Amino acid sequence: MQRGRPIDIGLSCPLPIPAHDSVLLGHGSGGKMSAEMLRDIFLPAFQNPILARLDDQAIVEVHGCRLAFTTDSFVVKPLFFPGGDIGTLAVNGTVNDLAMGGAEPLFLSLAFILEEGLPMHVLRQVSESVKHAAARAGVQIVTGDTKVVEKGCGDGLFVNTSGIGLVSREVHLSANQARPGDRVLLSGMIGDHGITILAQREGFSFESSIESDTAALHGLVADMLRVSTGIRCLRDPTRGGLSSSLNEIAERSGVGIELQESAIPVREEVQGACEMLGLDPLYVANEGKLVAIVAPDAADILLAAMRQNPLGRDAQIVGTVTGAHPGMVTTRTRLGTSRIVDLLSGDQLPRIC
Amino acid sequence: MQRGRPIDIGLSCPLPIPAHDSVLLGHGSGGKMSAEMLRDIFLPAFQNPILARLDDQAIVEVHGCRLAFTTDSFVVKPLFFPGGDIGTLAVNGTVNDLAMGGAEPLFLSLAFILEEGLPMHVLRQVSESVKHAAARAGVQIVTGDTKVVEKGCGDGLFVNTSGIGLVSREVHLSANQARPGDRVLLSGMIGDHGITILAQREGFSFESSIESDTAALHGLVADMLRVSTGIRCLRDPTRGGLSSSLNEIAERSGVGIELQESAIPVREEVQGACEMLGLDPLYVANEGKLVAIVAPDAADILLAAMRQNPLGRDAQIVGTVTGAHPGMVTTRTRLGTSRIVDLLSGDQLPRIC
Repeated sequence: MQRGRPIDIGLSCPLPIPAHDSVLLGHGSGGKMSAEMLRDIFLPAFQNPILARLDDQAIVEVHGCRLAFTTDSFVVKPLFFPGGDIGTLAVNGTVNDLAMGGAEPLFLSLAFILEEGLPMHVLRQVSESVKHAAARAGVQIVTGDTKVVEKGCGDGLFVNTSGIGLVSREVHLSANQARPGDRVLLSGMIGDHGITILAQREGFSFESSIESDTAALHGLVADMLRVSTGIRCLRDPTRGGLSSSLNEIAERSGVGIELQESAIPVREEVQGACEMLGLDPLYVANEGKLVAIVAPDAADILLAAMRQNPLGRDAQIVGTVTGAHPGMVTTRTRLGTSRIVDLLSGDQLPRIC
Repeated sequence: MQRGRPIDIGLSCPLPIPAHDSVLLGHGSGGKMSAEMLRDIFLPAFQNPILARLDDQAIVEVHGCRLAFTTDSFVVKPLFFPGGDIGTLAVNGTVNDLAMGGAEPLFLSLAFILEEGLPMHVLRQVSESVKHAAARAGVQIVTGDTKVVEKGCGDGLFVNTSGIGLVSREVHLSANQARPGDRVLLSGMIGDHGITILAQREGFSFESSIESDTAALHGLVADMLRVSTGIRCLRDPTRGGLSSSLNEIAERSGVGIELQESAIPVREEVQGACEMLGLDPLYVANEGKLVAIVAPDAADILLAAMRQNPLGRDAQIVGTVTGAHPGMVTTRTRLGTSRIVDLLSGDQLPRIC
């Protein structure tokens, strides 16, 4: 949990962050340390205008086609959890990264890194989950790869899914499109996935069952694109939660974002678990939610469209984009005070996806 | 090394292979056990006509574009070796998988799975190698992902590269296109990569230095496509070596392949190392070679074109496709006898790429 100082710590960071000599778990958090690694190592090495968009997917032109292209490795622990498994997560995660660019997801690749000794039935079960998730999402697994490493050199099963989608000429969603006055729409309850994984890992149990919200969101996105051209940017708040997604948008667009804490839907059990564990739901991972930055006059029609889709039933307007404090996300608490929602410093919950 | 019985052990295998209860290193070999896993787990789960081609890349139609799409994870040990490192290998490997479909490679994704504690300079060095290899190959890294796993749950650094290329309408290369009478062309010396890795890992040294042949082959392929429409199929003989690639082609095309052992170029040091270690160069991995099945009347012009490219300087016609013994690869030895070149049973050399 992170309630730190209001320093702007984005990619064009004005304050130097101390570099680390070796990789720490926090470098996989999707928070400050991830941003540091991106800034210090990856961006200098691979600078090009396509990568520099830093969205969840690249948009590339091939022979007159506008394609979305994305990749994601999954290392979630445990492999199976209430609501899904690593296979479901991989398919939905990659479909969502394409969908957040406004793309129609089409084709997925599937690459396994297996640890010697993995029970074959585990691989079979994960493959079945991939199959069903792909069928549900209407995408095809068209190419794959399998590597095996010695016992002790992996952790059961890691999977990478990359994906290709088609983007219409009219759609231009990006984290740098937010403007003061825009509204922040959230598609539903936050924190379910992260708390499910944590509970599973630590052996907690809750009175009523919480399960991962893993779901493919491209249908919801299509419903939204159908009713309005006012969408500026979409993100699925996975690693690092809603705070990471919104901080990235605030940073990339040079705007401030003001949330209304009371408007953010959180399941009672998730809120309770967070309080017990000292976590803030804004930092907990989701795998079936999206946050949308939309033009002010499009907010109501988009909200209505979202609520008609089962995956957006609990959608809410949760905040506003402002010209004040660029690069910063704040929230107005239930007590009426305001606090800064900074990027996560280390890793609150490693291997969440 | 494998000089086993002449059973047809391909994907439509007539003899049952005993299934394994858990994943073994041999399942990553690119040989029989990989084929078994593909047949028992992946093909039943993901059957579709695109995947069923079982080539090194999928060819998909998107909005009137013919795209090649491929994925590969790299787990090579050690990370650095004479002639390259895991970064070079990843870029060249994915470029080559696209090139073997006759595609012009365009865009790559890059996904790291890092082990906690990996020295940051290692990541930096690998990223530099990726950058340089991508620049040499003329492809752009446009999207990426980084995950971190706890110390002891990975092995330093694994990388996945997926790639997109554009395939011309006229080009239809596939492992099922070989016909009796076709010639087998090999672009150069075999075994360099595998022996380099093995030597590095085991601390052998040779009188003269052997290094990995890792290279991007799309320029060579373009030179070949320019002079002839007689190419049926291209493969880069990586894991499992030349034997694996040719067995797959023989199986998929329902043809026999007869090699001329004396025509297959092998560096003297590699031959010596193989003899010392009891390895057969036909099973040793290459990372900068291609094997082409071509129409008989196109063989000479293609051979000439290959030899004009530095990466095909040592190209040779090494065999013929026959109607006899479908699904089987044989070689005529220097002694004039014939032996079967079967698929590798286990894993001769784990984590070669």
